[in-house]
Amino acid sequence: MSPKGLDYSQLYAKDLPPAAGPWEGLYPYNFVTGHGSPELIPVEGFIESVTNALKKNGRDLAVYYSDGGPLGNLALREFLVKKLKKHRGIDVTVDEVMICSGSTQCILLINDTLLEPGDTVITEQFTYSGALNNARRKKANVVGVPLDDDGMRVDLLESTLADLKAKGVKPKYIYTIPTCQNPTATNLPMDRRREMLRVSMEYGVPIFEDECYADLIFEGEWEASIRSLDTTNHVLHIGSFSKSLAPGVRLGYIVAPQDVMNQMVVSKVDVGTNMVTPMMVADFLENNYEEHIETVRDMLHRKRDVLIAAMKERFGPKVDFYEPRGGMLMWFKFPEGVDTSVPLDAAKKEGLIYNPGADWAVDPAKGSNYIRICYGLPTEDQIREGVEVLAKVFNQELGDF
Amino acid sequence: MSPKGLDYSQLYAKDLPPAAGPWEGLYPYNFVTGHGSPELIPVEGFIESVTNALKKNGRDLAVYYSDGGPLGNLALREFLVKKLKKHRGIDVTVDEVMICSGSTQCILLINDTLLEPGDTVITEQFTYSGALNNARRKKANVVGVPLDDDGMRVDLLESTLADLKAKGVKPKYIYTIPTCQNPTATNLPMDRRREMLRVSMEYGVPIFEDECYADLIFEGEWEASIRSLDTTNHVLHIGSFSKSLAPGVRLGYIVAPQDVMNQMVVSKVDVGTNMVTPMMVADFLENNYEEHIETVRDMLHRKRDVLIAAMKERFGPKVDFYEPRGGMLMWFKFPEGVDTSVPLDAAKKEGLIYNPGADWAVDPAKGSNYIRICYGLPTEDQIREGVEVLAKVFNQELGDF
Repeated sequence: MSPKGLDYSQLYAKDLPPAAGPWEGLYPYNFVTGHGSPELIPVEGFIESVTNALKKNGRDLAVYYSDGGPLGNLALREFLVKKLKKHRGIDVTVDEVMICSGSTQCILLINDTLLEPGDTVITEQFTYSGALNNARRKKANVVGVPLDDDGMRVDLLESTLADLKAKGVKPKYIYTIPTCQNPTATNLPMDRRREMLRVSMEYGVPIFEDECYADLIFEGEWEASIRSLDTTNHVLHIGSFSKSLAPGVRLGYIVAPQDVMNQMVVSKVDVGTNMVTPMMVADFLENNYEEHIETVRDMLHRKRDVLIAAMKERFGPKVDFYEPRGGMLMWFKFPEGVDTSVPLDAAKKEGLIYNPGADWAVDPAKGSNYIRICYGLPTEDQIREGVEVLAKVFNQELGDF
Repeated sequence: MSPKGLDYSQLYAKDLPPAAGPWEGLYPYNFVTGHGSPELIPVEGFIESVTNALKKNGRDLAVYYSDGGPLGNLALREFLVKKLKKHRGIDVTVDEVMICSGSTQCILLINDTLLEPGDTVITEQFTYSGALNNARRKKANVVGVPLDDDGMRVDLLESTLADLKAKGVKPKYIYTIPTCQNPTATNLPMDRRREMLRVSMEYGVPIFEDECYADLIFEGEWEASIRSLDTTNHVLHIGSFSKSLAPGVRLGYIVAPQDVMNQMVVSKVDVGTNMVTPMMVADFLENNYEEHIETVRDMLHRKRDVLIAAMKERFGPKVDFYEPRGGMLMWFKFPEGVDTSVPLDAAKKEGLIYNPGADWAVDPAKGSNYIRICYGLPTEDQIREGVEVLAKVFNQELGDF
């Protein structure tokens, strides 16, 4: 035996993702991950709400599942029923809403319930890397549909479904982020939402609608969710409090028909989501949702303007982008042939981190000349300085691109 | 299309567990699940601690992972390093401790990292149903080793390993709950712990030590953990705050060598455990651990005595049991041939729920004449009354057993 003892690597399951490296901490110019802004965390409001909630229901912590059963805290589900109705046009009961530990757990539960190795799922061609990785870890084939400035090209979705049908393949779902899409920040107009639902019904393939950014529209129309148009259970809908409130609360939710919920809940093997944050968040949002979300939207609006101005100033015509009406991230296109992963190491040495586009693309090659920039965490000054660093390392590492 | 719309059942993955039924709420005589006692939830202490913690670090909630990185809240990991050293003899750094959403997530992560379909794992013959179900959902073969009043029979563990080796089978781990075993409530003496470690080293099969009840010894010796004896990384150790503090905080932890941790953390796809409860729990336990745990132990000690007296009174020689020195549950043996699942429906109608033993047994037939009774939640009066109801439905449904 080696002095180190047992070699676990010989015991590992096959096909694991590569092991993590050491935790790098937060870079000063942090352009990755959907972080929020520390100054907008309502610390005093949270203290007041968690105090109220613990005084009222703190003894419930003694019990697994407590009042809400496996679907989670009842007060938060009651808040969600009202919020979904008022803001997303969704009309459901508390029995059709499940609280999860962030929307990533929602994605896991849906995939655990629906996916077999070899299954096919459809997504936007550029999409959330977490959804992509989780479907792939389930050994599903992911088929990407191109987007334009109005989100997924639903005409191409339909031809993709027709092609797959001709090959005898029926996908398990159409995964879409219709509002403030990740990473393109586009919004699917209402006519495309209706059209997507029609296509879903025609092919008998449900829509998996991820609206984790849907609270963050700060300009123009606020489109209703696809789920709001659906009267025949063709849409599984998920959302999150990470972007509107705080990622650290780790709270998301699934809206699904009750029979699907009863099947999904048996995959939620964590014996419930913690009780403290749902109690706190329900109490806080019941009284403060509208006001708080306006503050968040205003801040993101200002930061978006600063980011766009800085990118224009530093990159000029070398960069192309869609100007988003909401959300907390942008997707920048560099000329064909540029590999945006090349400058990343140099950027990190300068204290800057960004997402090379390949990780957000079904076909990595098609994303390799893009970058994703998240602008929720950095201050306006950090955005300006960060873009300056970005331009410096791009010029330095890519030459005259 | 049916008026109900899409039929999701045709889309489900194969081999899913049966869908859940409606949530039944809490039965008045609740003898299932490791619930705690509502009157022992330190509501005022929690309010004080969460207030302190949010004032100090509330703005960290804006950021995924925050100070501790993917391994979780640093303050709680620092507390655990001290607690594990002082109470369990375990000498590790914060980099070898990961915070999870309850010890069930710890089990998931270890299984995700180690198990392939067709793998073999060894457990105690009677063991935690959650661990059993999770390994089986990963399509692992579970081999049970008999227990006596001193926990797992390590001589039989060794012969089991020898038999498997002769067949060319190398198990992935030996899962054991050495302290306040679930469901037998037995404790593995120190000499058996040493012997189990020797066997583990001889066969190159790691020990997966689950100490989720280890804070709850209220009588006699408090054996050190197996991990404390190990200098060659043969033990993966997990623990929980669910039993010592509150299940509703949903906090557990893994202690593992750093290379294994780096591999396990990539399976923790929830993007971190929520930040509020770890902050609160770290602040609370830093100042109150010893005092709080004494109160919990005293209560469990009293409830154990009430349960034993009631069972003796109502069942007399028809029931056999091990008298536990700690924990919050007991395992009662009825005569061979009794099927303890038979009276369950009648019991529920009388407001009583208990665990028929088959669900806690690797070979369900060997557990069918046992029941598990959890005594953390019911009051002393509810224990007495519940056992009266239990005797009534057993006599009624099983006749003269």
